[in-house]
Formats: sequence, C-alpha cells, structure tokens
Amino acid sequence: MSKLTIKTLAKELGLSIATVSKALKDSHEISSETKKKVLAMAEQLNYVPNPYASSLRKQKSKTIAVILPEVADNFFSLAINGIQSVAETKNYHVLIYLSHESFEIEKNTVNHCLSGRVDGVLLSVSSETSDAAHFEKLKNENIPFVFFDREFENFAAPKIITNDYECGFLAAKLLLSKGCKHPAFLSTSENLSICSKRSAGFTAALTEEGFIKDKHEFVIDCTGTPDTIFDQVQELLKNNPQIDGIVASVERLAMQIYMVSVANSITIPKELKVVAFSTLETAPILNPSLTTITQPAFEIGKTAAEVLFTMIEKKKHNITADSVMILPSTLIERNSTLA
Amino acid sequence: MSKLTIKTLAKELGLSIATVSKALKDSHEISSETKKKVLAMAEQLNYVPNPYASSLRKQKSKTIAVILPEVADNFFSLAINGIQSVAETKNYHVLIYLSHESFEIEKNTVNHCLSGRVDGVLLSVSSETSDAAHFEKLKNENIPFVFFDREFENFAAPKIITNDYECGFLAAKLLLSKGCKHPAFLSTSENLSICSKRSAGFTAALTEEGFIKDKHEFVIDCTGTPDTIFDQVQELLKNNPQIDGIVASVERLAMQIYMVSVANSITIPKELKVVAFSTLETAPILNPSLTTITQPAFEIGKTAAEVLFTMIEKKKHNITADSVMILPSTLIERNSTLA
Repeated sequence: MSKLTIKTLAKELGLSIATVSKALKDSHEISSETKKKVLAMAEQLNYVPNPYASSLRKQKSKTIAVILPEVADNFFSLAINGIQSVAETKNYHVLIYLSHESFEIEKNTVNHCLSGRVDGVLLSVSSETSDAAHFEKLKNENIPFVFFDREFENFAAPKIITNDYECGFLAAKLLLSKGCKHPAFLSTSENLSICSKRSAGFTAALTEEGFIKDKHEFVIDCTGTPDTIFDQVQELLKNNPQIDGIVASVERLAMQIYMVSVANSITIPKELKVVAFSTLETAPILNPSLTTITQPAFEIGKTAAEVLFTMIEKKKHNITADSVMILPSTLIERNSTLA
Repeated sequence: MSKLTIKTLAKELGLSIATVSKALKDSHEISSETKKKVLAMAEQLNYVPNPYASSLRKQKSKTIAVILPEVADNFFSLAINGIQSVAETKNYHVLIYLSHESFEIEKNTVNHCLSGRVDGVLLSVSSETSDAAHFEKLKNENIPFVFFDREFENFAAPKIITNDYECGFLAAKLLLSKGCKHPAFLSTSENLSICSKRSAGFTAALTEEGFIKDKHEFVIDCTGTPDTIFDQVQELLKNNPQIDGIVASVERLAMQIYMVSVANSITIPKELKVVAFSTLETAPILNPSLTTITQPAFEIGKTAAEVLFTMIEKKKHNITADSVMILPSTLIERNSTLA
C-alpha cells in the first residue's frame, strides 16, 4: 500500500484538494456536512497528515528534546517520567538524547536541535561541559530551554534544581553526629554543579566543626565504569583506613562502596557509615538499608517541563538567571548510618 | 539573530544557491576549492540545514522510534543504551516513547510514527496489548519494525528475545532442588509474551516433578503501583502460608517481595526463597543478596537496533515470523535461594 496523500483523499471524495485541506483544518469556509464526509473518509482510509510538511507550514515541531547524561539511572528515568507526564497533556513528543557525559556529544545534540527541529529543550549538563557557547546558540535562535538538576552556573536560563548545598551540609552533620571522625565526600566531577555544591556544603559543615585542614583530604573524585569506580573506592579505603564515613554524591558510587565493603569485609555501619544522594528504590532492602538524600526526581522533571511549556506557549524566553526553582530533597535515615 | 538560510550563505559567498547547495552535498559538479570555501563559511556562520525541508526532499527522517512500557526500569534503560550505541554509529536520532503499559497510548504512538516521521520502529509491547491492527498498519506502510523483549505472538516481524520458557523452567527446578514444596510464580500479566512463557516453563518443571494439580494455585497475577503490588504480595503470603518459594517474573515484583518480608518478619531464604528475572545492579548487595535470571538487556537493545538498520538500509522488511533471535539469560545463584 502506498502512502495516502491529501490528493488521493480528494480524488476519492470527488472534491478539490483545497476543500479537503480546509475541511481537515475545520475551516469556516466549509459546510459541516462536507467536513463530516471528509473526516469519515480520512478515518476510513487511515489518512495521516505528513508531519514534516505540516511542521514546515506551522513552524511547530510539537516536539521537545531532553538532553541528559544517562538513562540507566533512577534519578533520570524518574525525571523523564515527570517530563512525559506534562508532554502528554500538551500532545507533545519527547526526543530523548543521551550525552553519556560527553561535552562533544552534548554540543552536537544542541546543534541538531537548532533550526526548528524542536520547540524547546530540557537539559541536564554532562560532567565534561566547561563552556556555554552551545547554550548561547539556543538563546540566539530563541529556542526556549530549561536546565534541570545539573545546571551550567553563570549562564542565565531557568533552572529547576534541588537544595544541593544544604543537603551536603546535612549529610556531613549526620555523619559527625553519629561519631565519624574522618568522613570523606565522593564526588564524580567537581565540574558538575550538583557535585560542587554538595561538596561545598559538606566542607562547610566540617569547617564549622573545626575539622578540616586540607580540603583534598576529604573530597575525592571518582569516575568511570562501575569497575573503575570499584577500584578507586577500594584504593581510597586501603590507603586511608582512618575514613569512617562516606557521603556518596551520586547513587552509582554508593553501590560500589557496598561492593567494596563486601569484598574487603568492611562492616557498614560499624566500621564505615554511608549516606548517598539517591532515589534508589532498593535503598530500604540493601544490606544494610541505605541512608539516602532523596531528590524529588519526578517533580523536578515535571516542573522543568511545565516551565518549558510556559515559555513555548507564551514565548517568554528572555529569562534571567534569577528564575531558579529549588525543590528540596529529603534525608531518610536508615541502618547504614547507625551509631 | 534570524535563522541562517542557504540563500544568505550564497549571498555571503557571492555564489548561486544551486552551487552552495551542491557544494554542501559534496557534489562532483563542484570543484574542491569551492567546496572548501563553502564549508568554511557554513562553519563560520553556523549554518544548520532545516531538518524538515531536508527530510521532505530526502524522504528520510534519520530518526527511529522506540516504543516501550517504561524507562524507570533497569532492563529497559539498559536496552535503550544498547539501541543508542547503534543509532549513534548510524548518525540516527532516537525518539523514545513510553506506553506506560497502555494499549491506547501504544496504538496512538504507532499511528504517530506512520507517514514518514520515522524510518523504523523498535517495539516492546504493553501488558494490555491484545490486538495487532496497529502493527499491521506499520507493515502496510512498509515501515521496518522489530519487537524486542516483549513480542506480540503470532504476528510476523523480527523478534529479539531471551529464552523465557527455559529460564522459567530453570527457576522452578532451582527452587525445588533447594527444598521448596510450594513454589509460586508471580506474573504481571499473562497477556505478555515474557510472562506467559516464563510461567509455562515454571509450570512444566512442576508438572514434570509431579507437583501440580491446579495451575492457578501456583501462578498469580500481580499488577499496579509498588503499593498495590505490596498489598497483593502480602495478601498472597498471608492466605497461603505454605508458599515457601517465589519466582518473580519482573524485578519490581522482587522488590515488593523483599519489602513484604521485612514488614512481616518473613526470613529470606529460610522461610521463603526468591529468584527474580532481573538486571538489578543492586542484586548482590540486597539483604539477602538476590538470585537472578539476568537478561542480556544491553545486547537485546543493540541487536534489535542492528536488525532494524539492516532493514532500513537494505529495505528488507518483508520478514517472516521465523526471524527470531534468542539471546540467552544467565542464572546467578545468590543467598536468596540458599537451602
């Protein structure tokens, strides 16, 4: 079966192409009787308008792009569900792009979103992103965009984030209150807004308690695959047996801390207390159950999408850096931080 | 800044639009010197071709759609990574659509994919899907499509799946070998190919051992949100205290079995042994560590994408039902099934 065009439809009905086209657009120039006939035939023949031709005419793609580092991560998969929940009510399609933490891929993807392919962009930056020229391009083309979770600091665009600094502070205070003398903070990349703010909060709490001499004793970068993270964590704990508490800045680090503790017979929480930034559903059934700072992932995605659609619909996209919304995270104490 | 068209580019270079257009397409009619000049200027002015206009001309969207039930699930998020790994090498974009297990949404999404919006579709059916008319439409429009993981049985299209029947059989045999006398199988929907095959394998193993009188004593459907699944599992175990082993057909069921056992002080594996179809990264660090049948999720996604691109590139999409590829899963014994 060849594709059904409006021409075929018109021929089938014995009407002009213009009449059929107007009828499909519910034009007042066409009688309701003719409209009914056209719609019935369109339904019967399963006529679907060509989306590209239609986009060219309307200059609307009815599509938004979501650019994020990874989908095999609870935070992002929940955030995507939040985004989709809004897009569905707007009859919009969601293009999901993964940067895999690569600045190069992120730039190429943003370039690809220029020139009418999408009506707006939701973005959570890669850990390598060090320059904002690609965000400038979106702005110059008047394409609405919103940062969620991981923002690019010092770049003016709406940002939907959580209270990272405060939670880093809380996590350190919790470990100290449970008796830790040498807590460490595992970061993935100090480039990332979420990590730098969480670690700044952590460091501030330690400084306040008179704990710190050299920041680098306590804040350590860990990156790579699960295996390389395992090796880095194992190395760290071997070389620094005094470490008695860890704040994991993202959940994939927490998993490897548990794996290392199993492999090296380190008892959590007796020898090592652990608190993780995580939306992990299995946190309550881990061995031991994991104390988490749980981000409102679904709500962050949902709110970011709502802000984006406000911009798309009202064309308010000259937004300044002060349009930051902070949705607070929740500290949930479990057995991994028992005193 | 207004959008840069090929016309502006031509004006800027003092060349005709046709020349610039041909140069950008690397036509043999244009000298390499001119090509270099055009490309340099395009780069300098950040010229991006209009994707819709370009799609209309080429009749290629350079986009594939992935339609699946859920992204907040390890299996699917890993499968998406597998799909993306192939799409990236082909310079294709991936549109991800979630059906949220709704037949209605799945149908609408498939309809949306007709008429040139995408060059191919990868599909894992919703648990509600009971009719194949929407798949027929894809076929009638000659849009290549491939089922992955969850297929629609009796519909002829390439299918990339795992050895579900065999693994259901293995799981039951494992529970019996560990001393279980009343193992149960938790399904999400007997509509689903993966569930019906896994439960058929389970039932076959029990029958072989002379265990079964009534299938429904052992195979139970559990669906809904985490909370409703919790309630169903709790009810099941309360009303059937003889149940001493469970096979969870999908990982979200396993999580709730653990939650119920914590809430009701049921000791795993002493009082209840558990084996789950799961790609859960935290399986080894759960309390107790979880015995899993681990599907090759990334490879299933990757293979499905490879088959789809073969069809897109070679236009072989009159494929019969015998083009089924089975990538086997792995049984990993851990503490949740200790004798």
